[in-house]
Formats: sequence, structure tokens, C-alpha cells
Amino acid sequence: MEVIRTISELKNRLAKAKGKQLGFVPTMGYFHEGHTSLMDAARKENDLVVTSVFVNPLQFGPNEDFEKYPRDESQDIQMAKHHGVDILFIPTNSDMYPRKMTITMHAESITSILCGRSRPGHFDGVVTVLTKLFNLIEPNKVYFGLKDAQQFSVVDNLIKDLNFPIQLVGLPTIREMSGLAKSSRNVNLTDSERSEAIWLYKSLQAGQQLIIDGEKCPDKIMHIVKDMIITHTTGTIDYVEMYRYPELQPVTSQIETQIIIAIAVQFSHARLIDNIIVDQTGMLIERI
Amino acid sequence: MEVIRTISELKNRLAKAKGKQLGFVPTMGYFHEGHTSLMDAARKENDLVVTSVFVNPLQFGPNEDFEKYPRDESQDIQMAKHHGVDILFIPTNSDMYPRKMTITMHAESITSILCGRSRPGHFDGVVTVLTKLFNLIEPNKVYFGLKDAQQFSVVDNLIKDLNFPIQLVGLPTIREMSGLAKSSRNVNLTDSERSEAIWLYKSLQAGQQLIIDGEKCPDKIMHIVKDMIITHTTGTIDYVEMYRYPELQPVTSQIETQIIIAIAVQFSHARLIDNIIVDQTGMLIERI
Repeated sequence: MEVIRTISELKNRLAKAKGKQLGFVPTMGYFHEGHTSLMDAARKENDLVVTSVFVNPLQFGPNEDFEKYPRDESQDIQMAKHHGVDILFIPTNSDMYPRKMTITMHAESITSILCGRSRPGHFDGVVTVLTKLFNLIEPNKVYFGLKDAQQFSVVDNLIKDLNFPIQLVGLPTIREMSGLAKSSRNVNLTDSERSEAIWLYKSLQAGQQLIIDGEKCPDKIMHIVKDMIITHTTGTIDYVEMYRYPELQPVTSQIETQIIIAIAVQFSHARLIDNIIVDQTGMLIERI
Repeated sequence: MEVIRTISELKNRLAKAKGKQLGFVPTMGYFHEGHTSLMDAARKENDLVVTSVFVNPLQFGPNEDFEKYPRDESQDIQMAKHHGVDILFIPTNSDMYPRKMTITMHAESITSILCGRSRPGHFDGVVTVLTKLFNLIEPNKVYFGLKDAQQFSVVDNLIKDLNFPIQLVGLPTIREMSGLAKSSRNVNLTDSERSEAIWLYKSLQAGQQLIIDGEKCPDKIMHIVKDMIITHTTGTIDYVEMYRYPELQPVTSQIETQIIIAIAVQFSHARLIDNIIVDQTGMLIERI
């Protein structure tokens, strides 16, 4: 595996790989099994696998956790190597943003819900850095986890609206035995918060069970999910919401199509998100 | 030459041309020698030449000339054929914009001057359609005329800020014998306006002559250029401005670097633009 730290070096390297089927896994590093599952899938389906590690300042708000976002480059390098990555691209801020951008990008409409509401400008930063990375790497396929279902939906829109010649692959959320979704931010939980945090997924499963049992009313389901989080955690609920998926449009009165239940809970030093996507019978949808 | 009218047909065709050096000339059609000079240059420097004809609704304001922008498809097809174009791509609005865009693009800062000020949103539409066309066509080189020097500068920013793997080529403004810059919009001039319009370039030449003669003061030069347009035409001056080029930053006090003098004049049914780019000695810069 090659570790490449500059755009010019990356371009030279990729010029030699023209015509190869290229799979790309964009990340912010601090790898866990969620990331490596994407690398594994990319390895299976492509000639060349590129993973990027870039904690993109443009997608963090002024009061967010850019500085304390966890980083461990040497471990990332080891893990990428063991999961078949060919090129690990770790650019610097100054190479990615050498000057004030004069062309800016904005992710509209669906970003006024879920994380878009709590994190204004977040998805603008996401689509900007992805556009840059897509243009630099020119992948055939890109891989994202469905843990951030809204991000997945925004990337889907980015590719469709701007005609990027890229196939988007969404892979299942990877969970600990306890059900807690793997996240780089879990390291910022206190010990007691970590045991509480399993209730995020438990509450989603309770919501799913209600749908399996025939409950059709979104409000009843969300009420029970919220109640469970409030009862069992010290975290503050940012949102518990249900939308039709992938449209991310409100569920009007009754659950009749595929939906997502998405939650975000703020703990003392970590904001966690989780979701499940199920069809109208409650069956889990894992790959998109 | 193939005429292709759908994105899916275009993609199938280009899939067969992978690895070829591709030159792209994006246009709004109604070809004149300005356009064909770009096709000629693209023909010389590439294996495959793609030209697009698309009057992009997104770059026209509600009170602008989208409807009366001149169109002549059969003549465009003939001219493209005679200038070595391999693929003429003429998409429909509904194929280019099948739904409301959820990802939008914005061209900042330099668009608050010149045409950006008189045509708010214009360059947003330009960068959006170009991003779509770049992603659809994946050219190695793109060709633009320097008649719209501000557009050229915006495209340069688009490519640099978002890392498009594309080389930008700027070619000289093509003029009639009279000096009038070739423009699709010239057809919307009345006969008397057409004879007046030659004073746009005459006034720019007068400005250039002042610089050759040692005049360093931007205000004096612009005063004389304006005066000449007012005296000799019935048009209304939209702007006469001087900027350092390509930065498009104000010339502070004295002309000491390469500059552009850019003008826009509104006639009864046509808004014309023209410019010259010269160095501090007044020497014309023709290719960028």
C-alpha cells in the first residue's frame, strides 16, 4: 500500500492506473469495522482501491468537534493495509483548500431536516469536499456506510444532479455486540455513557418491532423510541424522526412505504447518530 | 459527425472512446467564427472533439433573453461538421434538468462585478451546467473564447477550486472587418445599431492607444472610452471597467500589470459585451 500526501503525487500515481476499475472509500479516518467493511467491499469489486483520510474543516461548524475529532494515523495506515487498500490518500488542509473558494456548493431542501438542521452548512462542506475528491480520484464506484443515511442521500443527489460518472454503493451499519453502531466518535463517550448508548439501537429495534406488529402510526412509534432514550440515557435528544426513504419526505399519517427512523443524541462530549431503514412490514433494508 | 440528443446515447458513445484525448467546446449554438475557431483549435489538439449546443435556462434571469436567444440548429450542424467536430451534443432541458436541483452551485466574489452585477445568478447557472457537462463528457481540454473574459475567469476558478482534471484553453475574440466582436446576439441589432456597435471596439482601441502612449491612470482611460461610446452610439452603457487580469481585482491608482478593459452596452434588443486584455505597455494579450 502506498501512502500519498499531496495532490500532485496522487495525480502522478493515478495517471499510471488509467483504465483500471477504481473503487474509492472517502473517510475522516480513525478507522473502525464500519470503514473496513467498505474497504473490503471495494477490494472485491475493483482493480484499484483508494481510501482518503481527511477531516474536512469545511463540514464542521465553528462550535463543533473539528479539533477533538479523533485521529490515529499510524493505526489507520495499518488497518487500511490489512484491508487491501492500494492507495491511502492523506492530504493536508492547505493542499485541499489552497485559497478561499470562489465557487461554492450548497446542499438544499433535505438538509433542513435531521443533521442538516442541527449542523447548518455541514452538508455544503460534505458535497464540496466530495466533488473535489471525485475530480481528483475519478472513481468508478464510491462506498459509504448507511449509518449516516442522510449523508448517503445527499451524495446520491450530488451524483445525480451533477451527473458524476460514479456508481454509489451503500453498505450496512456495523454494530458492536451490544448493538451500538460503530463510530469514530464513540471514543469520546464516558464509560457510563457507553453503556447507556446501547439504548439508541434498542429504541430503534423497539420501533421496528412495533411496525412488525402492525403499528402504522409514525407518532406513536416515535413517542416510544423517544421515551426509551429519555428513560435509559443521560443524553439529550437532538432528533427522533421518521421519513420515507430514500426520498427523506415526511410520512403522511400512515406507514405505507420504506421508511427510515433516524435519531441523534448529544452526550457530554460526543453526538451520536443511528438509524434503521425498514419496509412497511418492518423488514430491515441493509444494502442500497 | 454524429448528432446526439440524449445523455444515455452520449454515455454509450463516449464509453467506446475511453482513453482518447478529448477536446470539448461548450456553446449555446448559433455558431459564428468565434465558435468555429474553438472547434478548429480543439480539432488540432485532440483525438475526439465534442461540441455541445445548449441554451442553458439556468443562466438566464427572468427578464433576460432566453426565449429570443437566436437558434439555428440545421446551420449549426452544418458548421460543426465542416470544422471537424466528431460529436455534436444537443440535449433537451428535461434531460439536463430532470428534477429540481437539490445541490446548487454559486460563483462568488468576482461575480459582483461586470456581468455578474447586471446578471445576478448568471454565473451560478454557468458553473452548474459546465459541471454537469464536464462530468458527462469528461474532456481533457475545454475551449472558451476570451470575448467573455469574466466567464473565462469563472471557469478557471471552477476548474481550480473543484479540482476538475481538465485543461482550460482561452482563444482570441473573433471580430468582423469593422472590429465588431462576433456574437450570436449581433443578429438582434437593428441596422443602425450595427453600424454604431463598431464603436465598442474603437473605444477599447482608443483606451489601448492611451496606455501605449504612456497614460497610467485608469479613470482617465475609462472616461475617454465611455465618452466615445456615448457620443457614437444610441446604446446605454451597462459598464466600462478596468481590472487586473486574470485576478479581476481593481487597478489601484496606476496601471502596472496586465489589465482588462471590459464594456457592456445595452441596445434596443441586444446587450453586447467586448473587452481587450493588454499588458502595462498596451500590448494585446490574445491567448491564455
